[in-house]
Amino acid sequence: MDVLSELIAEITRLPGIGPKSARRIVYHLLESPEEEARMLAERILEAREKIVSCELCGRYTSENPCSLCTDLRRNRSVLCIVESPQDVETFIATGAFDGLYHVLGGTLSPMDGIGPAQLRVDSLLARLDGVEEVIIATNPTEAGNITALYLQQLLAGRDLRITRIASGVPVGGDLEYVDRGSLVHALKGRVPLN
Amino acid sequence: MDVLSELIAEITRLPGIGPKSARRIVYHLLESPEEEARMLAERILEAREKIVSCELCGRYTSENPCSLCTDLRRNRSVLCIVESPQDVETFIATGAFDGLYHVLGGTLSPMDGIGPAQLRVDSLLARLDGVEEVIIATNPTEAGNITALYLQQLLAGRDLRITRIASGVPVGGDLEYVDRGSLVHALKGRVPLN
Repeated sequence: MDVLSELIAEITRLPGIGPKSARRIVYHLLESPEEEARMLAERILEAREKIVSCELCGRYTSENPCSLCTDLRRNRSVLCIVESPQDVETFIATGAFDGLYHVLGGTLSPMDGIGPAQLRVDSLLARLDGVEEVIIATNPTEAGNITALYLQQLLAGRDLRITRIASGVPVGGDLEYVDRGSLVHALKGRVPLN
Repeated sequence: MDVLSELIAEITRLPGIGPKSARRIVYHLLESPEEEARMLAERILEAREKIVSCELCGRYTSENPCSLCTDLRRNRSVLCIVESPQDVETFIATGAFDGLYHVLGGTLSPMDGIGPAQLRVDSLLARLDGVEEVIIATNPTEAGNITALYLQQLLAGRDLRITRIASGVPVGGDLEYVDRGSLVHALKGRVPLN
């Protein structure tokens, strides 16, 4: 395989990139100033070298502990547990939560050999001093729900409020297009208005 | 800006990649084995270092002249003129043409200061020995058609057959969804069946 095909193959491995997009990207890299391609390559290497998982929350960071965990203005009594580092960024983007986060690093999956020991459960238990509420924000999928149930049982008996993010119809969505599961969930979890 | 945001910004510059896809790609690069990220970075640098434009046809290649131009089994009497290096790959993928290619490197665009001197016109004229037919395969856009007209006039008077790729309704398309321009073109260029 020649240099061109090798680069196209390498880029096709990235998530969400098909062979046609990969080809467009490669031609772009060849046509743009050499500096731009070099910069991209260097940033990739730099990221792999400098970015680590925060030893406290588990999100990706170039400072360890990360800037969120060391930010004293944040509310340290509420801890939001998520599956992946990306989920933290998604919550941050909402601007609606001022507590701390904890990345589990996945969900329980006995079939794949992923039990509590493979997740960041010990480091979760080590962070609970001073925490009054734990929000379980794993995905509303089967794996996410099972993991939420496990966490609920694990934390039961501690002097903690344990909550789960709400599931239901997406805000702004049209009921006609909502999937059955969300609709059933929205009905079951209906909230009194009076 | 931190290392993570810088890499996301760099990847968002690539064609067809929005900020969300860029973020997914970056997390993938952080989560995959370090070897994969390093390989990608090295392939990018290697491509910029080793890939050049073929001095004959103008397509990207790591051998100069490229393997197409030096392939003696190809029909050297037909030359297909295209706008960009990508267009050559698109034609190759069809497997329907066994002649040679010539990349113009764009279309005439006086407004942007692109005249014949900015395109690969001189190298085209230098390659016409032994060529019996020139197929003008610039895009069926206004700029592509103007460039085709220019080439037609430039090559007039030479002992050459000059052709233009057909435009019309896309094969397999439904007339209901065909744009007006293609339909008008298909009508004007209708072909006798008897």
